[in-house]
Amino acid sequence: MSGFTHFDDQGRAVMVDVSAKAETDRVAVARGRVVMDPATLARIQEGTTAKGDVLGVARLAGIMAAKRTSDLIPLCHPLMLSNVTVDLVAAPPDAVEIEALVKVGGRTGVEMEALTAVMVAALTVYDMCKAIDRGMRIEAVRLVHKSGGKSGTYEAE
Amino acid sequence: MSGFTHFDDQGRAVMVDVSAKAETDRVAVARGRVVMDPATLARIQEGTTAKGDVLGVARLAGIMAAKRTSDLIPLCHPLMLSNVTVDLVAAPPDAVEIEALVKVGGRTGVEMEALTAVMVAALTVYDMCKAIDRGMRIEAVRLVHKSGGKSGTYEAE
Amino acid sequence: MSGFTHFDDQGRAVMVDVSAKAETDRVAVARGRVVMDPATLARIQEGTTAKGDVLGVARLAGIMAAKRTSDLIPLCHPLMLSNVTVDLVAAPPDAVEIEALVKVGGRTGVEMEALTAVMVAALTVYDMCKAIDRGMRIEAVRLVHKSGGKSGTYEAE
Amino acid sequence: MSGFTHFDDQGRAVMVDVSAKAETDRVAVARGRVVMDPATLARIQEGTTAKGDVLGVARLAGIMAAKRTSDLIPLCHPLMLSNVTVDLVAAPPDAVEIEALVKVGGRTGVEMEALTAVMVAALTVYDMCKAIDRGMRIEAVRLVHKSGGKSGTYEAE
Amino acid sequence: MSGFTHFDDQGRAVMVDVSAKAETDRVAVARGRVVMDPATLARIQEGTTAKGDVLGVARLAGIMAAKRTSDLIPLCHPLMLSNVTVDLVAAPPDAVEIEALVKVGGRTGVEMEALTAVMVAALTVYDMCKAIDRGMRIEAVRLVHKSGGKSGTYEAE
Amino acid sequence: MSGFTHFDDQGRAVMVDVSAKAETDRVAVARGRVVMDPATLARIQEGTTAKGDVLGVARLAGIMAAKRTSDLIPLCHPLMLSNVTVDLVAAPPDAVEIEALVKVGGRTGVEMEALTAVMVAALTVYDMCKAIDRGMRIEAVRLVHKSGGKSGTYEAE
Repeated sequence: MSGFTHFDDQGRAVMVDVSAKAETDRVAVARGRVVMDPATLARIQEGTTAKGDVLGVARLAGIMAAKRTSDLIPLCHPLMLSNVTVDLVAAPPDAVEIEALVKVGGRTGVEMEALTAVMVAALTVYDMCKAIDRGMRIEAVRLVHKSGGKSGTYEAE
Repeated sequence: MSGFTHFDDQGRAVMVDVSAKAETDRVAVARGRVVMDPATLARIQEGTTAKGDVLGVARLAGIMAAKRTSDLIPLCHPLMLSNVTVDLVAAPPDAVEIEALVKVGGRTGVEMEALTAVMVAALTVYDMCKAIDRGMRIEAVRLVHKSGGKSGTYEAE
Repeated sequence: MSGFTHFDDQGRAVMVDVSAKAETDRVAVARGRVVMDPATLARIQEGTTAKGDVLGVARLAGIMAAKRTSDLIPLCHPLMLSNVTVDLVAAPPDAVEIEALVKVGGRTGVEMEALTAVMVAALTVYDMCKAIDRGMRIEAVRLVHKSGGKSGTYEAE
Repeated sequence: MSGFTHFDDQGRAVMVDVSAKAETDRVAVARGRVVMDPATLARIQEGTTAKGDVLGVARLAGIMAAKRTSDLIPLCHPLMLSNVTVDLVAAPPDAVEIEALVKVGGRTGVEMEALTAVMVAALTVYDMCKAIDRGMRIEAVRLVHKSGGKSGTYEAE
Repeated sequence: MSGFTHFDDQGRAVMVDVSAKAETDRVAVARGRVVMDPATLARIQEGTTAKGDVLGVARLAGIMAAKRTSDLIPLCHPLMLSNVTVDLVAAPPDAVEIEALVKVGGRTGVEMEALTAVMVAALTVYDMCKAIDRGMRIEAVRLVHKSGGKSGTYEAE
Repeated sequence: MSGFTHFDDQGRAVMVDVSAKAETDRVAVARGRVVMDPATLARIQEGTTAKGDVLGVARLAGIMAAKRTSDLIPLCHPLMLSNVTVDLVAAPPDAVEIEALVKVGGRTGVEMEALTAVMVAALTVYDMCKAIDRGMRIEAVRLVHKSGGKSGTYEAE
């Protein structure tokens, strides 16, 4: 037995059958970070107040992306998310920290939705700053909390 | 002058006007990695040959996501990509390395398309293995090569 | 307190958390109008019977758009609509009146879905007639009825 | 002859064949307005600086929607937009004025893209303020400028 | 009375109102086949093991398409699918047989989701082999099983 | 050498690189048929004139689907279609015949777009009539004409 739930016994990709799972309240929190030149972060911080709102645009992109998760991740179930929040904070001297929280009342967890929100928010930061800093890196995208569902609560940090 | 190209002089988010740019052949290459428990990597490696094809599914998800980039990243231009390749290779003991290459003949670069392909491929690896390893992390997503366009060639590694 | 429900106490855009709301039957009705040259309306009316069906195409576009609302409106929740109807009627001498009704059994209202259906139906009328009348205007797009949910029934006209 | 370009001689809906049209630089500008309670406008104006950014979110929604136009309007051609800008300004005592400008180098005009951007920006304003003012109305959505292409320049105001 | 459920009494297209239907477990199974040159099938069969995985790519495309059904079929309701499986098997000498099974707990059936999965899987087989065999044909796409809902069980073969 | 163009030499799925191909005018025509109970066809034929327009809705669905092809077929390139027409005609006693024609000025052919249009038009016929005839079958979906591009003209019937 492989332990994979996305392959049947002949190794073919399938969506997991969740029709027998209970609808419960589920929450997932994911985090990640964009590491950049300190000068870029300074520009973002100035921009947030005076010249433009990189973090505000990225927040919105992350929220919208969470709703598209099942279009992007082949074996994800479509879900009617009841809440998505995305936070981006400057972490001087050289990073933007991102956290996404997603809630659903449904039959499968929302880890992928939270991770997708973090990723697209991070990519949006990259897109908006790439003209001044091509060397930015997206790091440490991971699940930090999960609750609800049969597998119980997961707490990473 | 802020240096940002996505904000006008009042700080409002705008798409960059590329109507005066030349259509040239442009290429971008991005890389990233999913770090995991060595036992998870072993499962993926077995699966590729016998039980299922995590890396094959992720490759396809990455290719398809590259085509959706302008839907996800708010200020990205729609582009008619002429080529997308995504490679995932096991990097023992504990990682899957991902590289995406995107080509276009157009007025803007394809960095975001390459980064999006890497991201969604990485998220798909996470999705397909999360039942056995919730602690996986996506690391070091970055641009490694860019050519074409006025800003010339960028080579990171 | 600002009264806005889409911003948290630091002014950042968020989806409203509806996870604690009850699933109830909700209905919304929106209306709007496309004002045009009387000659254009005459063409549409002839077309409906003999030359083509502007209103039929617009009706379908409105129905399909209602299903895409959460893709378009950044902070809208995805919803499983149980019914969408869109009606377009000629209102001589110079207008097409549009009404959309949307139903859902869910945790949030469907005002935005009804308004989106009206809007896209109106835009489709514009698109199909713009070769003969660029001066058309879309007017008076508004919510006329809403029921279900904690805030009770709203009746505008 | 009906004058419609979206119906063939049997009245059936078709996309206009643009394969023989020249690729030229095309621009379209559309405008519209959201009319509301003066108290709502005051809240938006406060929010822009202190509590949240209704107009900033709506601007982004409009830009993203312009890129989705051919998904929404049945007979619109897909286009590689080279620029989209959306502006929203408070127009005291009771309105938000919206203007969208879209550019493309292509075979068909971008009127629908500009109108769609205005529409979705207006709907987003409605969505973000509807908890405090259900009676808002979207008015006067119209094309104000078009240039490029065989039909020449159109200037409405 | 016409018997159609997608038209009202004036012949206008509408989504069926399912708001009064019970949420029950529903299943649909659809099948179809791609008929091709025997040499093409031989190539696919070799490819599955040594050169590439036409059937694996098509399976994934079918699963992903099932989730997009309500975007494609104008009057289909959006649904939160709880399971999708797609199987493709070589049927020598000259065909690939496709079967899709879809489950939902909801108010409408999933026949269209199962048929859409079969169709897109079949198209993907065509796409991946068209360079060597343009004469392939997609045949016999039909519903073979349906259960759940008021209309009861349907069994075609 | 396998002859497949969607797999590299290690058998991994890739988009074909078309960056070196010339932009030429390309046309593709596909056909298919929905076979049904003669009573169903009679209902459709009555409906077209009096009760509703199954074929008109299906035509529109086909046109819109052609524009979504690269979202559905994993290895298809995004293309700016310059024309899509879809025709559906009653073929008594028991079929609806469908033909789609797609044009593009681009680097790859539009066979998949034409086939996708036929498919979704056929599925829409099924959807709109399934309440009265679950036994309908979609048959003989195939490419009948292709011109433009290096491989020259293909004519099947």
